[in-house]
Amino acid sequence: MNQKDNIRIGLFGFGTVGQGIYSVIGRARNAHAEIKRICVRDVCKPRKVACDPGLLTDKASDLLDDPEIDLIVELIDDADASYQIVTSALRRGKPVVSGNKAMIAAHLPELIELQRETGTALLYDASSCGSIPVIRNLEEYYDNDLLLEVKGILNGSSNYILSQVFDHGRDYDSALARAQELGFAESDPSRDIDGIDSLFKLIIITVHALGVYVAPSEIFTYGIRTIKDCDIRYAREKRVKIKLVAQVVKVSESEFTMFVMPEFVVKSRYIYSVDDEYNGVVIRGECYDRQFMFGKGAGSLPTASSILSDVTARHYGYRYEYKKMGYAGRPAYTTDILLRVYLRSTGSQDIIGSLPFEKIHERYTSASCNYVIGDIRLSELIRHRRALSSPDIFLCNISRFFEEE
Amino acid sequence: MNQKDNIRIGLFGFGTVGQGIYSVIGRARNAHAEIKRICVRDVCKPRKVACDPGLLTDKASDLLDDPEIDLIVELIDDADASYQIVTSALRRGKPVVSGNKAMIAAHLPELIELQRETGTALLYDASSCGSIPVIRNLEEYYDNDLLLEVKGILNGSSNYILSQVFDHGRDYDSALARAQELGFAESDPSRDIDGIDSLFKLIIITVHALGVYVAPSEIFTYGIRTIKDCDIRYAREKRVKIKLVAQVVKVSESEFTMFVMPEFVVKSRYIYSVDDEYNGVVIRGECYDRQFMFGKGAGSLPTASSILSDVTARHYGYRYEYKKMGYAGRPAYTTDILLRVYLRSTGSQDIIGSLPFEKIHERYTSASCNYVIGDIRLSELIRHRRALSSPDIFLCNISRFFEEE
Repeated sequence: MNQKDNIRIGLFGFGTVGQGIYSVIGRARNAHAEIKRICVRDVCKPRKVACDPGLLTDKASDLLDDPEIDLIVELIDDADASYQIVTSALRRGKPVVSGNKAMIAAHLPELIELQRETGTALLYDASSCGSIPVIRNLEEYYDNDLLLEVKGILNGSSNYILSQVFDHGRDYDSALARAQELGFAESDPSRDIDGIDSLFKLIIITVHALGVYVAPSEIFTYGIRTIKDCDIRYAREKRVKIKLVAQVVKVSESEFTMFVMPEFVVKSRYIYSVDDEYNGVVIRGECYDRQFMFGKGAGSLPTASSILSDVTARHYGYRYEYKKMGYAGRPAYTTDILLRVYLRSTGSQDIIGSLPFEKIHERYTSASCNYVIGDIRLSELIRHRRALSSPDIFLCNISRFFEEE
Repeated sequence: MNQKDNIRIGLFGFGTVGQGIYSVIGRARNAHAEIKRICVRDVCKPRKVACDPGLLTDKASDLLDDPEIDLIVELIDDADASYQIVTSALRRGKPVVSGNKAMIAAHLPELIELQRETGTALLYDASSCGSIPVIRNLEEYYDNDLLLEVKGILNGSSNYILSQVFDHGRDYDSALARAQELGFAESDPSRDIDGIDSLFKLIIITVHALGVYVAPSEIFTYGIRTIKDCDIRYAREKRVKIKLVAQVVKVSESEFTMFVMPEFVVKSRYIYSVDDEYNGVVIRGECYDRQFMFGKGAGSLPTASSILSDVTARHYGYRYEYKKMGYAGRPAYTTDILLRVYLRSTGSQDIIGSLPFEKIHERYTSASCNYVIGDIRLSELIRHRRALSSPDIFLCNISRFFEEE
């Protein structure tokens, strides 16, 4: 394509982010992009941002089969429909920009293969941490095997809730209600508070950080749903904040681990200060020590501006090369590592006693609350997932990795 | 070049960063790079990092004329010699990675033109903020005209000194001495403490942020050399820190300004927490609000890892496109803006009285120290540069731009 021409976009989805990208492209004089057609489920639904009704259609083929459309931007919620659109577009030789982390995290190996087969690019920087350019930097800048760790707060909703608790003294339920009121959390907040959204992002990040794909079901993921006042009190007494942290860490030359878990974060850590709906990512490497990136991880315009970065990258023919997937000596995924955790139970069943702790460092018992601080293998946490998901249990990582930060 | 082959590097300079890149390439198994020859002034000089003596030469032509060398990495201190090497290499069709900010800031328009003429690439991400990928992100990710401001702490040495003063209660002179002791400041620290190093970086950043080059002599640059106890006391009383801040800011749709100046930074700002030898950059845009990047801005290995990123980017044929220089409606540089400043004088001459303040908000007079808080045009500060450079004067910006942060 002539670089002077505008990229003509076929947009799937006209919700918050779709309307955001529509506004942003209108504002950016040098975006070199125009929206040619918008596919929505219901053409007649009233929307906040008005667009030429002639742009709207409810037929996917109006976009996918239009030879004048250069690029598909896919911003719909439904992961299955997103998968159909993205793979159909790639097979027709139309490059795609997508923000659907659930779909990408589930199908990434296949999507990488499909990009290779068809020679057509799929970009998805907006799928991880909204406006923070994490994927692009991992792919292009930290493009060598000196990277040791990517660790961060990847979900704005759960972070907003925890921030209301730890910075504004609210209890968990009223914090969640307030997040829902303000639109930071969905009416069904499961994905955010159960760590699923963070997990999807972590999977995508790991492909670009270490060149290895790990399927969602293999990764230990624990959220903040069961947090109780006694946990909050415990954290406050220790002068730490509880944050929902996703991390991928090299544990040796040849192995890495990854998980999503609440963590007691001390004040000296960068992510301690990532509050409200913000995201923050720490990238640690052998030579550059720690890099910290911080910004708005969600919301209509921040996400839209990230989508726009992918769109203009396509203007210059940019594609992910997945270089690290071809590296010699890629590290292998392991769950055979020892973690130190806080495990609290308020129920009558002795779940704590049934878990194979290798060492118990502290034990507290009272009428209303029992907890232990102990060392346990990550593989055992995975094996006991079901017991740990009880509403009476709360699990929190006591970061033992790399205490030197 | 076959992407499986190693890039063969001709390295100019084997000082701190040169030895760093030599070590880093040795460590990174998938760097796809090897150092084929090293040009130094004195082949016999003893060095901390040992290398095969057969690699060393003192003849530039041994590197520049070797057809087996694919890439020149230029890491010498002398800006004139650096200019000769870089332009000679580009004219011979050899791409260059350089870390010489003084040379690049002085000659960037010519170097851009030379890259166009010769079709040969020059990369210099390491020249601004060491390991923080500022240039690459401005060029590739924030590659649209929604960017409003880049503001940051770009010099580690002066920041280390100020951090010793504000976080560790030292006085300025002992902080400077300590910085020199630890190697964070040169025996002649002028470039760091007078803001010149920050200025060079700001010029390079501005080319990639807004697509406009402004020559060093046109930019107001004020350092921390003349800071005195009374200024430190004033800042402490107001619960702010003094930081040496470089910034480029759009002041309207069609104009931007830029300068380097100490600034009173309040606790709520991101850069307040950038301490010691760290650098931190805030990128503000119309849609994504603020992005903050933070990391080690200097030092052998952080800088070397940034050089390595440029080297491997060359492996994939990466070059800066300088896209924004071709944008319609690029903003114009202006110094016709009003700043609110703190101006302190301890001398007998009435320098404060001789400056054309448009409004004085506060005035303090005592036997040992006089200061005003007043509004003055940036163009007038430039016009009165000489008077302001008196050792009896200290000038500090009171950030009035964008108070909403």
